[in-house]
Amino acid sequence: MSQAHEYVKAHFDQFKSQLFDLLRIPSISTSVDHAGDVQRAAQWLADDLERIGLHPVEIIPTAGHPIVYGEWMGAGLDAKTILIYGHYDVQPALKSDGWINEPFEPEERDGHIYARGSSDDKGQIFTHMKAVESIRANGAKAPVNLKFLIEGEEEIGSTHLADFVAANRDKLQADVCVISDSGMPNSEQPSILYALRGLITMDVEVFGSATDLHSGTYGGSVHNPVQALAEIIAQLHKPDGSVAVPGFYDDVLPLSDEERTELQKTGMSESLWRQTTGAPKQWGEPGFAIHERTGARPTLEINGMAGGYFEPGFKTVLPAKAWAKISCRLVANQDPEVISRLVQNYIMNISPATIRTTVEISEGTRAAFVDIRTPEMQAAIQAFEKGWGKKPVFMREGGSIPVVSDFQSELNAPVILMGFGLNDDGAHGPNEHFMVEMFRKGINTAIYFYEAIGA
Amino acid sequence: MSQAHEYVKAHFDQFKSQLFDLLRIPSISTSVDHAGDVQRAAQWLADDLERIGLHPVEIIPTAGHPIVYGEWMGAGLDAKTILIYGHYDVQPALKSDGWINEPFEPEERDGHIYARGSSDDKGQIFTHMKAVESIRANGAKAPVNLKFLIEGEEEIGSTHLADFVAANRDKLQADVCVISDSGMPNSEQPSILYALRGLITMDVEVFGSATDLHSGTYGGSVHNPVQALAEIIAQLHKPDGSVAVPGFYDDVLPLSDEERTELQKTGMSESLWRQTTGAPKQWGEPGFAIHERTGARPTLEINGMAGGYFEPGFKTVLPAKAWAKISCRLVANQDPEVISRLVQNYIMNISPATIRTTVEISEGTRAAFVDIRTPEMQAAIQAFEKGWGKKPVFMREGGSIPVVSDFQSELNAPVILMGFGLNDDGAHGPNEHFMVEMFRKGINTAIYFYEAIGA
Repeated sequence: MSQAHEYVKAHFDQFKSQLFDLLRIPSISTSVDHAGDVQRAAQWLADDLERIGLHPVEIIPTAGHPIVYGEWMGAGLDAKTILIYGHYDVQPALKSDGWINEPFEPEERDGHIYARGSSDDKGQIFTHMKAVESIRANGAKAPVNLKFLIEGEEEIGSTHLADFVAANRDKLQADVCVISDSGMPNSEQPSILYALRGLITMDVEVFGSATDLHSGTYGGSVHNPVQALAEIIAQLHKPDGSVAVPGFYDDVLPLSDEERTELQKTGMSESLWRQTTGAPKQWGEPGFAIHERTGARPTLEINGMAGGYFEPGFKTVLPAKAWAKISCRLVANQDPEVISRLVQNYIMNISPATIRTTVEISEGTRAAFVDIRTPEMQAAIQAFEKGWGKKPVFMREGGSIPVVSDFQSELNAPVILMGFGLNDDGAHGPNEHFMVEMFRKGINTAIYFYEAIGA
Repeated sequence: MSQAHEYVKAHFDQFKSQLFDLLRIPSISTSVDHAGDVQRAAQWLADDLERIGLHPVEIIPTAGHPIVYGEWMGAGLDAKTILIYGHYDVQPALKSDGWINEPFEPEERDGHIYARGSSDDKGQIFTHMKAVESIRANGAKAPVNLKFLIEGEEEIGSTHLADFVAANRDKLQADVCVISDSGMPNSEQPSILYALRGLITMDVEVFGSATDLHSGTYGGSVHNPVQALAEIIAQLHKPDGSVAVPGFYDDVLPLSDEERTELQKTGMSESLWRQTTGAPKQWGEPGFAIHERTGARPTLEINGMAGGYFEPGFKTVLPAKAWAKISCRLVANQDPEVISRLVQNYIMNISPATIRTTVEISEGTRAAFVDIRTPEMQAAIQAFEKGWGKKPVFMREGGSIPVVSDFQSELNAPVILMGFGLNDDGAHGPNEHFMVEMFRKGINTAIYFYEAIGA
């Protein structure tokens, strides 16, 4: 066992305790009330990056939440440079959503760390930080130069990151970019992502009467906006489960038989799907398997909807307004701008004259593809093999990481999606968790990866 | 001008100030957090009833919120007895719903008192209390015996009132029951209600996955419950605006040409409807005018719906659950139990196997009809004529007052629906208001009514 791996073994409990401290900061980027916490998490990371020997470490303000940047260039000009990306912001979470522990009071139970952000993405970026700490223990040199880029806006669409990357090409220049913000289907079989879906989001609002009305006095003469919005939403999918927006699938490239066969290896069985989701019966686009529907096909999802009185009790109100939050996952060759307009136009077209509808589009993200034949990918394969004792398989993921295509286009560097989470970690849901064994293997695998790139 | 009417004139400012005190109590019956306020409002009313000379006055506990009861039997056994009904509980209200003033900090602006409950129903029951105070000023006797029955659960379906009425037939026995909990189309033309719609309410819940999931990882394979609920709601009406539940209209009696002609007199014009509602275009059951849709035909309304993340910002969640609150307004000859089952069965039938649906029915209220040929109604017509200087017209109302049919069946007494509100008072919505002139004319009209009944 190398000195670095010995260090991991000796300090692992301390690493966990440090991660707990980071997880206690409710850095929810979508909530203005938590702006101070987001800032606090940035400071915490900057302090730890300095402690493990990066220099300089900066907290760089953006028009939104700050970016934490730190580097160690001590391997020299001839050595390779790795840019490591992660995010310190998290999704909202309330105990009342169904959490066992308070989401920002981490607990270890049955080999898992339970807390919002434990897997997505604090635990994963921290894995790299502890790999760097271990490899540089006692003043040792790392075989590669290291750059950390940790943003605070991933959960709200990485609003200011693309501009930052474009404006700082020289600063961020690297031979390979590593992104650890994804999951594997299971902890025994390592896997590497090579495709991510893109994302577009939009806010739909439907207005009826000018104010809430008494449903007894006016009900039956006003088109209820909750009902009207439901009628619109019901027309977004065909009865067979496919998306009904005209042109939605037009630019999707068909899956080759070869790719379908490879994907089949990490495909989710109906019984595992049922066990993980708890849903009564699978649903979705006809002609595609579960893992194809979630990973290789575009989807349209209602992330939330509300209107009228929906608290306990009853209020016989005819609401003035209803609203929904809609997102689409996109696959390669689909243009976020084009699809956003298609959905917007379709919604406006099917909205009746009895209500007033608005559709506000947010900036979208393209789907990403990674070339799996590069030398950097070979280094990653080797690192996973050493970390797990098993060759990794390749897979597609349904989620979106906006920065992938920015790195590819702006930095012209290969991207490795080195996820240490698991698909059932419950990212974005209640009881999000990070497997302790994934944390440990992740640190060791990251060390192997730095060594393989530097070799 | 009689002594009672002189008293009204001299004390009207004081009456208003007392009403403001009552309106400051947020007696929201649907919220457990406000149970103390509901109790406080009951005590406030009991105190004022005692002050104006009723005896005994009781605050009678129920399994829910208490009933306030008080009587004055000083007119003697040979005199007639009037039972006056109202309610002191109110609908929920938050300034953020669009109120100009705090809903429980009453304000007078442009001849209207703005506060939750000002019209529905504190202002209206208080109108009778001030009429009694005025008629009995300086120890004068009233020409009739008086009983006040003021409940605290009208806004949650008068849950415990029917049992109370049935168990207290002797106590409540009266020659005529007066209910002041409704509105007129305009303040210049007095009108008397003779028909009210019934009401059924139900809670629909749709469940998908066991917990909230990441929409990128599972979206496209799980039937999103918000989408599924929208699909269910969209099937509750036909595209033409009629209710799609099979059998919904089966027991509805057709409107006679005669009745349609009479109703036409208080019918709402398209331009007034547009002005009052602010909605872009009228909607509803084909073949019926606006006032028929809202007053004489049954309807099905979505009072609220929610699911997923609907706060500001975005959360790419695949929600585990969505829920809606649905109510139907019923007309004469429709059985609440039968219609509830029809709607429940229909929803369960159209719910797909990819989700789990529950429909919880609450107790319903029958529609009510009042015979307009009774002597008591003649007394009411006379009172309105004196109060307004104009003969009242007869009309139907879309709202529901559960107690009407209970009074009719249990007390076997004629019911007079003597509403002093206006249809555009904004009951149940933001900026609810009560016209000061309606309050003044209402007190005078109530005095004329007591005198006419006692004559």
